[in-house]
Amino acid sequence: MKITINRNSFLNELATVQRAISSKTTIPILTGVKINLTDEGLTLTGSNADISIETFLSVKDEKAQMLIEETGAIVLQARFFNEIIRKLPEPTVTLEVMDNNQVAITSGAAEFIVNGLDAENYPHLPVVDEKKQLEIPVRVLTKLINETGFAISSQESRPILTGVHFVLENQTLKAVATDSHRLSQRVINLENSNNDFDIVVPGKSLQELSKSFQDEEEMVSISIMENQVLFKTSNMYFYSRLLEGKYPDTNRLIPTEFTSEITFNVAKLSAAIDRASLLSHEGRNNIVKLSLADNKAIIFGNSPEIGNVQEELTYESITGEPLEISFNPDYMKHALKAFGNIDVVIKFISPIRPFTLEPTDSDISFIQLITPVRTN
Amino acid sequence: MKITINRNSFLNELATVQRAISSKTTIPILTGVKINLTDEGLTLTGSNADISIETFLSVKDEKAQMLIEETGAIVLQARFFNEIIRKLPEPTVTLEVMDNNQVAITSGAAEFIVNGLDAENYPHLPVVDEKKQLEIPVRVLTKLINETGFAISSQESRPILTGVHFVLENQTLKAVATDSHRLSQRVINLENSNNDFDIVVPGKSLQELSKSFQDEEEMVSISIMENQVLFKTSNMYFYSRLLEGKYPDTNRLIPTEFTSEITFNVAKLSAAIDRASLLSHEGRNNIVKLSLADNKAIIFGNSPEIGNVQEELTYESITGEPLEISFNPDYMKHALKAFGNIDVVIKFISPIRPFTLEPTDSDISFIQLITPVRTN
Repeated sequence: MKITINRNSFLNELATVQRAISSKTTIPILTGVKINLTDEGLTLTGSNADISIETFLSVKDEKAQMLIEETGAIVLQARFFNEIIRKLPEPTVTLEVMDNNQVAITSGAAEFIVNGLDAENYPHLPVVDEKKQLEIPVRVLTKLINETGFAISSQESRPILTGVHFVLENQTLKAVATDSHRLSQRVINLENSNNDFDIVVPGKSLQELSKSFQDEEEMVSISIMENQVLFKTSNMYFYSRLLEGKYPDTNRLIPTEFTSEITFNVAKLSAAIDRASLLSHEGRNNIVKLSLADNKAIIFGNSPEIGNVQEELTYESITGEPLEISFNPDYMKHALKAFGNIDVVIKFISPIRPFTLEPTDSDISFIQLITPVRTN
Repeated sequence: MKITINRNSFLNELATVQRAISSKTTIPILTGVKINLTDEGLTLTGSNADISIETFLSVKDEKAQMLIEETGAIVLQARFFNEIIRKLPEPTVTLEVMDNNQVAITSGAAEFIVNGLDAENYPHLPVVDEKKQLEIPVRVLTKLINETGFAISSQESRPILTGVHFVLENQTLKAVATDSHRLSQRVINLENSNNDFDIVVPGKSLQELSKSFQDEEEMVSISIMENQVLFKTSNMYFYSRLLEGKYPDTNRLIPTEFTSEITFNVAKLSAAIDRASLLSHEGRNNIVKLSLADNKAIIFGNSPEIGNVQEELTYESITGEPLEISFNPDYMKHALKAFGNIDVVIKFISPIRPFTLEPTDSDISFIQLITPVRTN
């Protein structure tokens, strides 16, 4: 294998596959990046137990300035390799596989000789079922992930809750995540979906996936295999394992009747919650209290050692019964952040029942649920 | 005490004194910031075992929009206080001391009540000997600190080496630091110095000092007291303890006769050292080898597991005997960084004797010393 290539183009590909490469793996070859060079271009692969990423850089890509002298394949230690390429002196780099899987990396006067591993020993990626279940814009999928992924559980005690539940049926795609204290559910309409599915994708995989996309205007196709999902863009294959087991029925958790409603601008409410949580974060119980009465909404936070805070909130509209309710301000902050700066309506039933947050724009099917904290 | 003040002006002062405040102190009141309000303005104080910082914001400062309703003093938990002020909704904040050292912090609709401590219990700062030993521009002092401070020892086994040695005599100010593996010495001429001194200032104090300056065009006056030094600008008093003991005689360490000399551009050499150190960092001994022979300068680095690197260096000029010398590339990187991007001449005696680095511009009295590593 021998190739000369633009360093920046190469680094860009490396950065993507590196998201899948962990230095902590117990399988030594997986600490490496697999480089496979054909007459068509360069394929890089990185993999760990949960995800595998493959990128393809075409020989026709002009920026890449690819000069292929000999095709072939090799596996190189990902961590060093990236560092070396990054620090080379000239705009291009030449990689040449020599005897004993040694690789010469040259750029200007600098010459590295590094030890590689035989690419034959690199594990094979799952075989792809080419049947596409779904194709959506990267931008839409990324937004869906941001709107729900934060609400997954970080506890391994209920593994199924560490993923986001995606259900495709009746031309709609529903994404739901919950850690049993809060829930976020987003539903979008799709016009051209073919085969329905019901899968749970690990939250961590989705996080890496959304960081791996390079162009949010292109399309990503989603294919489901036995216990894997493949997200495919024009030059990236992103595989993730699926979580096994049955996701709880979250539909029955979402209340439909309420006694009080209040509408806020997200930015204004976020700032006030932020202030109230400054002190609650120091207390044993991280809670703030919201009081609705006499057309006033007041938030309270306190810490026995430091002091207390109260603030009358600016709202857009208010209706219903008076109420005092306590909750974890961090759940509220995360929920508000997921909405972006819009107006949201918060609907309450009682101090001990979960409350909901929804955009005032009823065209957006997006609902969040937060369980309050009982204080007496 | 009651004052209304611009939040940004106040935060700016807080940030400065906070450099001296540690949450780990064993003296509880020192986790707080002392606020003292007189008719002239606002004095903030922060202190720990090593340094104390006092800032003064004059009532005449227009940006501060200060409205003093009642003078007085209080001590507030520094960490929260800063966070609270930072997150308040309006451009100004009002502080009012109430009964039992409680303080109301209000801004717009937000009202915090926090517990303060009696300012009477805050320790007194050292009494200042008003005799100024030296007055120099902030810019010059900051540069001096950057040029030497990195070479102090981080080992507490020889405490005196954890400081920078400043000697004022014969109208020159010399700053030297060494950790016994490398040394950096910078000498500047001063026209109007009065009383000579010979002090060792803790490196950490100097680091905080250089970050605390707000205006590098103003002057800083330096006064030495019994075991303290005071750096004073128009609105800041920065006290540091001095290190006790005799600083080693570093003059005798600096060689004056050499067998080989080579001149480099700092940026080019730095980049090459950076590459060579990529692999040396992984080896048991973090060393790179420089070979001078036949008008070529070649740098080598290697790690048994990863591989090796060599690069022919671009130099400006070379004279003297051939040489092979090994050294810690990190010492070289730090030394080069301290010079900035100029040309430097490196002078060698032998593979086992320290080598020197100096600017080619002989008007700059700046010398660094690095001890090589014996490899056989």
